Amino acid sequence: MRISELSATSGVPIPTIKYYLREGLLPTGAQTSATRAEYGESHLRRLRLIRALLEVGRLPIASIRKVLTAVDDESLSMHHVLGTAHYAIAPPVEPPAAGEEWRRARAGADALIDDLGWRIDPEAPTRDELAHAILALDRLGMPATGEALRPYAETAARLVAEHEIGTIPVGGPREAAVEALVLGTVLHGRVLDVMRRLAQESASAHIFGISYGADGPRDGDGPRRLPGGDDSRDENGPRGEGGPRARNGPHGEDGPRTRNG
Amino acid sequence: MRISELSATSGVPIPTIKYYLREGLLPTGAQTSATRAEYGESHLRRLRLIRALLEVGRLPIASIRKVLTAVDDESLSMHHVLGTAHYAIAPPVEPPAAGEEWRRARAGADALIDDLGWRIDPEAPTRDELAHAILALDRLGMPATGEALRPYAETAARLVAEHEIGTIPVGGPREAAVEALVLGTVLHGRVLDVMRRLAQESASAHIFGISYGADGPRDGDGPRRLPGGDDSRDENGPRGEGGPRARNGPHGEDGPRTRNG
Repeated sequence: MRISELSATSGVPIPTIKYYLREGLLPTGAQTSATRAEYGESHLRRLRLIRALLEVGRLPIASIRKVLTAVDDESLSMHHVLGTAHYAIAPPVEPPAAGEEWRRARAGADALIDDLGWRIDPEAPTRDELAHAILALDRLGMPATGEALRPYAETAARLVAEHEIGTIPVGGPREAAVEALVLGTVLHGRVLDVMRRLAQESASAHIFGISYGADGPRDGDGPRRLPGGDDSRDENGPRGEGGPRARNGPHGEDGPRTRNG
Repeated sequence: MRISELSATSGVPIPTIKYYLREGLLPTGAQTSATRAEYGESHLRRLRLIRALLEVGRLPIASIRKVLTAVDDESLSMHHVLGTAHYAIAPPVEPPAAGEEWRRARAGADALIDDLGWRIDPEAPTRDELAHAILALDRLGMPATGEALRPYAETAARLVAEHEIGTIPVGGPREAAVEALVLGTVLHGRVLDVMRRLAQESASAHIFGISYGADGPRDGDGPRRLPGGDDSRDENGPRGEGGPRARNGPHGEDGPRTRNG
C-alpha cells in the first residue's frame, strides 16, 4: 500500500509516519519508483507498536528505539524481547543508593524474590525498584519485611496467574506480542491502581458509616466493623437508599435498626 | 521548643521550616518574644505530614495547602478529611472527554461500582479516572466490560479488606491519620505495581522455560505450562540450580527429564 493508505489504515498522520521513517523507527517501504514506496502488513504492525509505546507506554524516542532494535534482532529470544519492552515501560528507577541501608534493602528484595520462588533475572531493574520501595518504607518506620510485603506479592501472583497469563500472543509476530504486553501491563496496571483506591474509599465509608443516597451522603452511626472483602455490599443497596438507622450512641455499636431499604 | 529543636527533631532544615511558615502551611509558633517562637508536638506532626505530602505524595504546594485546610477545618468529618487527601494523591485525572464514547465509559464505571456494591461518592474523581481507563482499553480494542475488569476489582477489594483496613489511626490527631493514609496509599501502591511486574516476569520465565542458575540464564525446552498462582516454585530451586533437562523437541511438551537439582 502507498503511504496514504498506510496512514488511513493505521490512523497515523502522514507527517508522523515520515518522522518515524526519518528516525529509523519504521523501516522504509519497498521503493517502486524514485518517489514511491510500498508498505505492507509489517509496517502496519510496526506503527501500532510505535503508537502503543509512545501513547500508552509514554516512552521517549530513545527507549522506543531500544525496544524496536530488540524486536528486529532475530538472535534474541521472544522472552528477551518481551523483557526489554517490559523493563522499558516500568517507572524510571532511581539509581541504587549507597551504603549499608541500600545493601540491606536490596538484600531484602532479593531474599523476598527467592522466598517466593520467582524466576527473575539477576540483573532485572525491578530488583532495584523493589529495593527502593523497601528503603522508602523503612526510612519512614513502616514495616518493610518479607512478611509485611508478602500479601502484595501473593495478591499480584494470583492476579497474574489467574487473569493475565495467556494474554500475550507469543506464537506470532513479535510486534503483536510486544504491543499486547505494553498495553496490558500499562493499562491494567492503571485499572488495578484505581480499583485499589476505590476499594479503600469504600472501606472507609463503611467504617465511618457513610452511605450515598439520592439525597446525598449520610453519616451513619459512626465507625462500624467492615463487612468482609469482595462480598461487601451496602445493606441499604448500592446507593444507600435505606431509611434512617436507630441511633446507637456516638460510637455506633451494632444494634437493632428501625428500617432498611 | 525553639525552631532549632523543631528542625533537629523533624529533620527539616530551618530555611525549609521558615518557607512553610511563610506559605502558611505550618502555623506560627507561640511568640515568646519579638524574635522567638515556641513550637510544640502539633508542629512536629504538621511537619511530618507536609513532608509526607511533598516527598512521598509528590504534591504541589497548592494541593498540600488544600489538604491542610481540610485537616484544620473542624467542621469536616474525619472521613471527609481523609477523602480530601486520598483524592489529592491520586494521579492527575484528565478532564472528562466529550461525546457518546465518554458517556458510555463513565456509565460503565458507575455500573461496575454499583454492581460491586462499593460506597463511592458520586462526585469522586476516581469515577472519571476509572472511566478514562475503560475508554483507553475500549479504543484499543481490549475488553473493557465489567466482567473483564471485575478480577482487578475483586483482587483490590480482597487486598484492602485483608491487609490494609485498620492501618489508619482514625481515633487520634488528624495529621497522623492523613500521614498514614498518604504513606500507605502511595508506597504500598508502588509495591503492588512492582510485585505485579515481577510476577509477570516470573510467569513469562516459566512459560519460556527460563531459569537462572549460577552460570547465568538457561533456556529450557521452550514454552511450558505455568505452575499455579502463588504456589509456583521453580522445580530446580529458586535460582534454577537443577541440571540440564532432556530436550523434548522444539515446543517442549512435558516429558521425562534426565535429572533435577
